Amino acid sequence: MTEKTYTACLVIVGNEILSGRTTDANLPFLAKRLGELGIRLREVRVVADSEAAIVKAVNEVRAAYDYVFTTGGIGPTHDDITSGCVAKAFGVDLERNPEAVRRLEKHYKPGMLNQARLRMAEVPVGATLIDNPVSTAPGFRLGNVFVLAGVPRIMQAMFEGIAPTLTGGKPMLTRSVGCTLGEGALAQGLGEIQARHPDVDIGSYPYYRVGGFGVSLVARGTDKGRLEVVVREIADLITSLGGAPAFDVAGA
Amino acid sequence: MTEKTYTACLVIVGNEILSGRTTDANLPFLAKRLGELGIRLREVRVVADSEAAIVKAVNEVRAAYDYVFTTGGIGPTHDDITSGCVAKAFGVDLERNPEAVRRLEKHYKPGMLNQARLRMAEVPVGATLIDNPVSTAPGFRLGNVFVLAGVPRIMQAMFEGIAPTLTGGKPMLTRSVGCTLGEGALAQGLGEIQARHPDVDIGSYPYYRVGGFGVSLVARGTDKGRLEVVVREIADLITSLGGAPAFDVAGA
Repeated sequence: MTEKTYTACLVIVGNEILSGRTTDANLPFLAKRLGELGIRLREVRVVADSEAAIVKAVNEVRAAYDYVFTTGGIGPTHDDITSGCVAKAFGVDLERNPEAVRRLEKHYKPGMLNQARLRMAEVPVGATLIDNPVSTAPGFRLGNVFVLAGVPRIMQAMFEGIAPTLTGGKPMLTRSVGCTLGEGALAQGLGEIQARHPDVDIGSYPYYRVGGFGVSLVARGTDKGRLEVVVREIADLITSLGGAPAFDVAGA
Repeated sequence: MTEKTYTACLVIVGNEILSGRTTDANLPFLAKRLGELGIRLREVRVVADSEAAIVKAVNEVRAAYDYVFTTGGIGPTHDDITSGCVAKAFGVDLERNPEAVRRLEKHYKPGMLNQARLRMAEVPVGATLIDNPVSTAPGFRLGNVFVLAGVPRIMQAMFEGIAPTLTGGKPMLTRSVGCTLGEGALAQGLGEIQARHPDVDIGSYPYYRVGGFGVSLVARGTDKGRLEVVVREIADLITSLGGAPAFDVAGA
């Protein structure tokens, strides 16, 4: 019996990423944490702060994956349109959520909770709030879509709050073997190892950096013993070609 | 008369990005360079090393944007499947390109150009080669799709080779004003400034870091004078609320 594979997609809402001004830090975090929870991040989309783009992306990916996470666009300013777009994607209205208002009222000093900040209490009808232990204004879940903040510190805190509620399969495990042989020298043997072990995903990642070039051969799968077998075969291949395998070296 | 807006999408082929093992460095580079060339990066997709996923993404985005750039998956190993996927997306065959073979023959020492490395000379029928001044194995262009390497140093060299051939509009210019006021305090006034200046895109990006929190207000547009007007209005807004505007501070 094949176990169900749980899949996820991340939708990054952000003109600032698309302009190159800001480098996204949420993808690496979510990729790792989802892997640990046994959920495979299968796709990421970075979309502009445009209603049409966000609605289209959310509807396409929520139909295709078990979980969708969005980051960004839930603050108080005019360019924060994610909540409304998710409501539109689901065909529901935005409503001012009383519990969210209560939290914001508690957080802000008297007179500081203006109309703009109250917009952060507007969530789609039927949504469940996601706690924000950093700056109060909540995210929300609607169906399989989790709407999170864009600021990494807040996004991470929100994610850790919902992580226990996510259902995953076996955690994804990773082993790596590095060497300074050329990828092309390894390719045939590596392809044969991959063909013999279809349950393990073998990736070959060349790098160029100060000190020379090399390649990281990465084995990913859910069974520790099977990974060990594959890693041994890769190491033997490297040795047979005159190289020196380096096991599980960070970045190599 | 409205000038044509040239748009682009980046498709990052990479299990290593989706696993969180590697942090992509090609998006920030391409975002900046395309902006300088007057081409707006409108979407980015990170897709798995899966034929179905790559073919679907390439076909969706090549119909939607003027330019599509792909990074990754054109090396000699079993997980390098981008060239075949792009061929399939266009409904054409892969063929061994004689000029690409010639370049590889010149690059490798006698006896080193094995079958795996020769795979790097296989490009879709009708494609034009893209030079690789770093490690020889070329990328290619087919229609509006530019297939580039994943290793940043190689990708950047390939891009600089094709940059002069890309048609763009006016370069995108950016100005920013930072302050330590809350986003919510600025939101109403900022929305009014945005409404008065629809030709300038105003983004509000809060940050939390050691030393406190703040917000960067970023104005983007193609007219330097119009940006100056908007930046002045944002600075006046900040001052009127008791804040201290900081102009064009990197990262603020």
